[in-house]
Amino acid sequence: MHIEIYDTTLRDGAQGEGVNFSLEDKVLIARRLDEMGFDFIEGGYPLSNPKDAEFFQRMVAEPLKHSKVCAFGMTRRRGVKPADDPGMKALMESQAPVITIVGKTSDFHVKEVLRVSEQENIDMIAETVEYFVQQGREVIYDAEHFFDGWKANAEYAAKTIAAAASAGAMRIVMCDTNGGTMPEEVARIAGEAAAKVDKPLGIHTHNDCELAVANSLAAIDAGAIHVQGTINGLGERCGNADLISVVANLALKKQGYEVLEQGELDHLTELSRYVYEIANMSYRINQPFVGSSAFAHKGGMHVHAVNRVAESYEHIAPETVGNERRVLVSELSGRSNIIAMTTKHDIDEDKALMDRILREVVDKENAGYQFESAGASFDLLVKRISGTYAPHFELVKFHTSVESRGGQPVTEATVKLLVDDQVRHEVAEGDGPVNALDAALRKALNGSFPNLRGMQLVDYKVRVINSEAATAASVRVVIESRDADGEVWGTVGVDENVIQASWDALVDSIEYKLCKDEGKMA
Amino acid sequence: MHIEIYDTTLRDGAQGEGVNFSLEDKVLIARRLDEMGFDFIEGGYPLSNPKDAEFFQRMVAEPLKHSKVCAFGMTRRRGVKPADDPGMKALMESQAPVITIVGKTSDFHVKEVLRVSEQENIDMIAETVEYFVQQGREVIYDAEHFFDGWKANAEYAAKTIAAAASAGAMRIVMCDTNGGTMPEEVARIAGEAAAKVDKPLGIHTHNDCELAVANSLAAIDAGAIHVQGTINGLGERCGNADLISVVANLALKKQGYEVLEQGELDHLTELSRYVYEIANMSYRINQPFVGSSAFAHKGGMHVHAVNRVAESYEHIAPETVGNERRVLVSELSGRSNIIAMTTKHDIDEDKALMDRILREVVDKENAGYQFESAGASFDLLVKRISGTYAPHFELVKFHTSVESRGGQPVTEATVKLLVDDQVRHEVAEGDGPVNALDAALRKALNGSFPNLRGMQLVDYKVRVINSEAATAASVRVVIESRDADGEVWGTVGVDENVIQASWDALVDSIEYKLCKDEGKMA
Repeated sequence: MHIEIYDTTLRDGAQGEGVNFSLEDKVLIARRLDEMGFDFIEGGYPLSNPKDAEFFQRMVAEPLKHSKVCAFGMTRRRGVKPADDPGMKALMESQAPVITIVGKTSDFHVKEVLRVSEQENIDMIAETVEYFVQQGREVIYDAEHFFDGWKANAEYAAKTIAAAASAGAMRIVMCDTNGGTMPEEVARIAGEAAAKVDKPLGIHTHNDCELAVANSLAAIDAGAIHVQGTINGLGERCGNADLISVVANLALKKQGYEVLEQGELDHLTELSRYVYEIANMSYRINQPFVGSSAFAHKGGMHVHAVNRVAESYEHIAPETVGNERRVLVSELSGRSNIIAMTTKHDIDEDKALMDRILREVVDKENAGYQFESAGASFDLLVKRISGTYAPHFELVKFHTSVESRGGQPVTEATVKLLVDDQVRHEVAEGDGPVNALDAALRKALNGSFPNLRGMQLVDYKVRVINSEAATAASVRVVIESRDADGEVWGTVGVDENVIQASWDALVDSIEYKLCKDEGKMA
Repeated sequence: MHIEIYDTTLRDGAQGEGVNFSLEDKVLIARRLDEMGFDFIEGGYPLSNPKDAEFFQRMVAEPLKHSKVCAFGMTRRRGVKPADDPGMKALMESQAPVITIVGKTSDFHVKEVLRVSEQENIDMIAETVEYFVQQGREVIYDAEHFFDGWKANAEYAAKTIAAAASAGAMRIVMCDTNGGTMPEEVARIAGEAAAKVDKPLGIHTHNDCELAVANSLAAIDAGAIHVQGTINGLGERCGNADLISVVANLALKKQGYEVLEQGELDHLTELSRYVYEIANMSYRINQPFVGSSAFAHKGGMHVHAVNRVAESYEHIAPETVGNERRVLVSELSGRSNIIAMTTKHDIDEDKALMDRILREVVDKENAGYQFESAGASFDLLVKRISGTYAPHFELVKFHTSVESRGGQPVTEATVKLLVDDQVRHEVAEGDGPVNALDAALRKALNGSFPNLRGMQLVDYKVRVINSEAATAASVRVVIESRDADGEVWGTVGVDENVIQASWDALVDSIEYKLCKDEGKMA
């Protein structure tokens, strides 16, 4: 049985505290979900803000390959025709092929929050769904407060979903909007609901009782064929069901369900981290399936057993979801990691060299470096320690300044370098101090290294490492660069001074490019 | 029915990556759990390290009032008598009234990991339990890999727990050691196990499938009367069942269960944060029940409804667990959020003013601002728009520069301000450009505003908003400040230039402090 995966990271996920996606962020995430075979991607609520409306225009201009794009909205306002409702117009203008309409299930909400008659609510649901169906759209109906409504007045709740079903909604989604429902209630009510409508059911849960994943699975076991959630469980309050766990459980733990595209399960860890990176959020190290601790073994007894038989303390093989086993607090594990990471350097498992590299990596990591997203800096470190590194230029000095007189600030940087024993002294302006430094550095180097012209910075991230000391704390800068061949590499710098940390990452990025083009990084 | 709560934060929780408790930490946590009426507190594994052994001596010297202290250990080694086993000796020396013994349930583990005969494993369990019972201790038997073992060979698994039960163990605890079991399997197997032993059952789960809480509840519904877990779900890999969620669900969501001392439920939030503080870990803002986002409302529709009827988007009243409701401001919010956030500004629900504020918030958020963690900047924005804001100083110019000649960079900043029509022109050095600007700004202002001396920056965060354009993209800076009264406030700045964005956030922070001390932010 194929279970439809409906992602609402871009809409419900964006309701989470501290979550804020730019238009470009949303497009990037949608493309990644599309590649992995998600069935539906809810892009936003076009009436609520211009960014969401623009997202749908981007999807029209550059359509996805597999996933269906969904636009979210509410039932029409009371007393107006759907065609005259601004929300309906915004949904039509989105040109999304699927329209997801949320409506009220609970008589309490109809009376106390919406403040319309029970019949008017039924009409609002039926007319809204019917309107989009007549316009040739597929409609998914999200029944808000479904379980609370059913418990309070099952007869009325059943009428609301029957209205949506008769009006042509292709899925009826049972929403545990407040996240307060227990799994046994989900199972029971889902069974009762299935008997009342002839359309397939879906499930949408929230994690307020730490049961969002369990409730999603309970509904599917009771017959739902469609599940809504977000990557990493982002979302309002305690978040939505984490689709990472839902998908992994359906595919690996339960019998008889198919999800996503064949063979995409081993990209779950990558997907999780990609979304965290785009949202500029820290990973949850103990996140089920994809966290960096999910297959980390600390206790000596467990490490010993895992060394004998991996499955003794692992419920699945970590590779299945693209994750990896780690053994903590062990120099041995360190060395085997380093060996794994240095195979391309052709240093023949030289044990003394490995130890020196390991010590340097540990020292750097203690100082705040992180090489996971900075492989180019790691490769340069290995070259430096093994004595095969010759820098292409030498710093004499750099200087950068920002001055403001209340309006647009003026930013300038100078760099003075030795390149092939020649002094190059250049100045440039920029949008900010790092941009200006980068520009001056290129001016000083482009003459000798014309291949730098095809290289550009594609990402720049800053994180304060020890936040207790505020602006005097250390700062980690990670830069991602790309060249004309499409290769992308990451470099890192750490310093108390954000400018120095940025400089170090910039220099590594350029040195890596120059070494690489000389065939010295292979 | 009273459900026994068994806390293993100090033992299994300490296996979590990054978790490390000192002896004093352990004593503090134990006392707190004791006050709240936890039935059992597992203090450690006395054989494994001296700190755990010392913990038990402290518990003997200063006994707890309510909770029973438990010492953890394994069954005796193969081929030795319990009285001669160093693990058994360490357990006896702990003087703990309750001994928790873990033993093997799974024939696979007996054969592949322990490498003893099936009968020897049964003898190890029976003799170990019997030994402690004879010494007058209460014994809890933790059946490791219980569900995996039962699925592989139910007959052998049943024999292992029957051996522990006949030997006198007072509780048989079913452990989902690898965290891979589904709730329906837990329910089924718990039912089968109950038919095989005449001692009460307990449950111990791990969160590898994000189902630890659901599995705990499933076992209790199937008849278990004892549940093991940790505060905040600390623990190896993905952690143990979070007792915060287990307790809250049992007390508030399920019928017929009693947990903890009467009236202690409203200390759960405090307990959660206390354990995070002691472990020096960051809170998980979206943690169920106790996270700071657990009752935070961002979407306009939700805020509107919560203002009408709180329970419309809250599954329980936040006070029940000692938490509180919060309203967040964002582009997703409608006028309701603004009204809720501006009640302290005494602007009488002036609709036109609200609309201007909302428009400004939406414009700012489209430009990359985010006010959720920058309430002070939001309050200043409201004051500016409503015309009640008078700045305490005016910028003439600022200048900041960083220069490096290869070693430690030299960083300097100057600021020139008008304060009460007087020119203040100051210079300072710093660890980085923002630190230097902050120092120069304080030099220029401290004379007129001595109350700034008690204020300090406690956090500084930078994020690039549109990462596609790299160093030329916009940057959002969020600063958190604290004053001598312990009040903490957040401010935000956005600009293409990280220095300008930092300046804007710094100025807001200082202006907020000055307005506040004049009673103008009430």
